[in-house]
Amino acid sequence: MPTDTSSYPVVFVGSGNLATCLAVAMRDKKIPIIQIFSRKATSAKALASRIGCAWTNDPDKIRTDAALYIFAVRDDVLVETIGKIPPNGGLWVHTAGSMPMDIFGDTVNRYGVFYPMQTFSKARPVSFHSIPIFIEASSASDGLLLQSIAACLSREVHFLSSEQRQQFHLAAVFASSFTNRMYAIACHLLERKGLDGRLLLPLIDETAAKVHDLPAVKAQTGPAVRHDVAVMKKHLDMLDHETDLKELYRLISRNIHG
Amino acid sequence: MPTDTSSYPVVFVGSGNLATCLAVAMRDKKIPIIQIFSRKATSAKALASRIGCAWTNDPDKIRTDAALYIFAVRDDVLVETIGKIPPNGGLWVHTAGSMPMDIFGDTVNRYGVFYPMQTFSKARPVSFHSIPIFIEASSASDGLLLQSIAACLSREVHFLSSEQRQQFHLAAVFASSFTNRMYAIACHLLERKGLDGRLLLPLIDETAAKVHDLPAVKAQTGPAVRHDVAVMKKHLDMLDHETDLKELYRLISRNIHG
Repeated sequence: MPTDTSSYPVVFVGSGNLATCLAVAMRDKKIPIIQIFSRKATSAKALASRIGCAWTNDPDKIRTDAALYIFAVRDDVLVETIGKIPPNGGLWVHTAGSMPMDIFGDTVNRYGVFYPMQTFSKARPVSFHSIPIFIEASSASDGLLLQSIAACLSREVHFLSSEQRQQFHLAAVFASSFTNRMYAIACHLLERKGLDGRLLLPLIDETAAKVHDLPAVKAQTGPAVRHDVAVMKKHLDMLDHETDLKELYRLISRNIHG
Repeated sequence: MPTDTSSYPVVFVGSGNLATCLAVAMRDKKIPIIQIFSRKATSAKALASRIGCAWTNDPDKIRTDAALYIFAVRDDVLVETIGKIPPNGGLWVHTAGSMPMDIFGDTVNRYGVFYPMQTFSKARPVSFHSIPIFIEASSASDGLLLQSIAACLSREVHFLSSEQRQQFHLAAVFASSFTNRMYAIACHLLERKGLDGRLLLPLIDETAAKVHDLPAVKAQTGPAVRHDVAVMKKHLDMLDHETDLKELYRLISRNIHG
């Protein structure tokens, strides 16, 4: 039987890109968010006013009666942030792909992970419906609680171990962060010559759409997969003064050709 | 006044991915394709039967009465292919991003380029409507003829010099070929651990969709742009035995962080 998630009040610790997108999505699903905590008052206040809830930048004023505490802060300040917040009886989860669940182990008894695998920007609303949410919990009952909440947002909820989640995070860096960098380089190469980078959008869209139908290895096109040495040489010449891009071009081409 | 393209019969030289997608799109727009030539009989025959036209694998049997000859072959056999075909009075164009227009100059008097910037696979139909088609011609009147034909297929027809087109082709390698390789690596990293690569699709889609709204440089997320050294170190450890991927990870991360 599904848990009634409206009876599980949530506190957000963090107010960045992921916190903002997740809090908005939860609010839309009537999951009660009662407070936003962030070290930065302006950022806490901005998200609280979007959600219509209280906010604080004082860790000692964080509500102790919430059911769920979602730590959505940068990975490199997560441990430090956990240490600053007075322990309570709620379920504490983080949203970080690369951090193990047990970083909470010394602080609280009930903990877990709630990792929506997506690229988030504050200004851009995203639909959570198809975003995989990877969950993990220190007890079976808290696992079910997280599952109920995640299932309100997405049809792709999966229990994963910390190690499996880290694999997804590593893969996501290639599939999204590095992919976006390829877009940025492509734009730069055009704009430095006064050409319109937006003309790449249909190509970018089709490249993404294609891997819904074909495995990426089979969808591969371009000079490297054809081992077209003349074109690759010409491209390297065109990158003449951009040593880093030349090295990248060489390395990725070699990786494609094998 | 638009040219009546139905009175301009077309011969295709080549029957690969691009030739197939372009010939199908032209046939759908009632542009008359009268013959497919390819060195490979099976491939010429397959495309001809899709289009409903004649085919040949003998260069001396290529029709001499077509208005337009579209050379859609691999860049590295283009010059050789041009040399094998008896010259005639038609307009000869190639579809290669990286090849200059004047490779035809010693062979025929009327020539040009017709480069649809997209990633093509035979099995996957694509809509040409939003694909940029970059054209160039040895005379103004043949430029207008190419423009009329391209405008039947796409709303994005642009006259570009060979040098500008080469810039687009180089950018396209980053935006599509290298991007697709990032997808392939991401899938590989999951599949080697028995995890489902298809769970990356929503992330891949959103990463592509985002750059319609934000410049790629602003859309950048991931550990490198946050300069999250601990996460990057963990990822490099996870890539332990894959030396090439480690090097790629390091180089792209450095390129992101600057």
